[in-house]
Amino acid sequence: MSVKEEIMAAHDRFYAALNEMIADKPRSMPDAWYHDDDATTTHPMGHWAIGWDQVIATWEALGDALSDGGVRVTDLHIGIYGDMAYTIGVEHVTFRIMGGEQMSFTANTTNIYRNGPEGWKMIHHHPDKAPEAEEAAAG
Amino acid sequence: MSVKEEIMAAHDRFYAALNEMIADKPRSMPDAWYHDDDATTTHPMGHWAIGWDQVIATWEALGDALSDGGVRVTDLHIGIYGDMAYTIGVEHVTFRIMGGEQMSFTANTTNIYRNGPEGWKMIHHHPDKAPEAEEAAAG
Repeated sequence: MSVKEEIMAAHDRFYAALNEMIADKPRSMPDAWYHDDDATTTHPMGHWAIGWDQVIATWEALGDALSDGGVRVTDLHIGIYGDMAYTIGVEHVTFRIMGGEQMSFTANTTNIYRNGPEGWKMIHHHPDKAPEAEEAAAG
Repeated sequence: MSVKEEIMAAHDRFYAALNEMIADKPRSMPDAWYHDDDATTTHPMGHWAIGWDQVIATWEALGDALSDGGVRVTDLHIGIYGDMAYTIGVEHVTFRIMGGEQMSFTANTTNIYRNGPEGWKMIHHHPDKAPEAEEAAAG
């Protein structure tokens, strides 16, 4: 595989784990990430999580809260800089939060990956906040 | 300066240029960036810009549209991976769009930098979309 194909595989592994999480639990999510102290994520609702322990805790909480939906990505672009790379795109998101009404929104998203001992894996995930999801999660 | 201090200087140079742009024009914005074909940015309103030509065009358009405000960053965290680094934080944004009502909002933000021939400079900027800013820009 070319470097670009390897990064795309890391991207696809993350989104497969994300869709598995919405359907059920984030079982394969840990495999999509390096478990770095500097790993960072945020979500359509909530605040920055810093370090793998916080990051995986947010995925576990989302796995409990979300159902009936999925995420697909359009407008994908890859920037490769040595052993780091990032992808940007537009996420088309659908889910229910805690059994509430199904909602759909789009979110600009940045993902960052590094190439380490286990190949290319994610270290950072940032989709736009979605005010409708924040309201539903708070309500 | 330590590497961390150099990256913080690149961060601060970008936000000084951003505040200068809101006050007047994006005069010093080009100096804060590498003018890469892969440079990417988005803004509280609008879509991804890819490549330096598109990126600087969005800053020029915002310089014409925005006034009466500024941006300060809290919750700053730096991840350093060799010659790439990224910062996350929360932007506290205030401005008017095209002379309309002054608005304030917060946005989770990812910035990516690389260390090249001109030292550390930005290559990617992603603040959350702000629906109120999108409505005002469309209106």
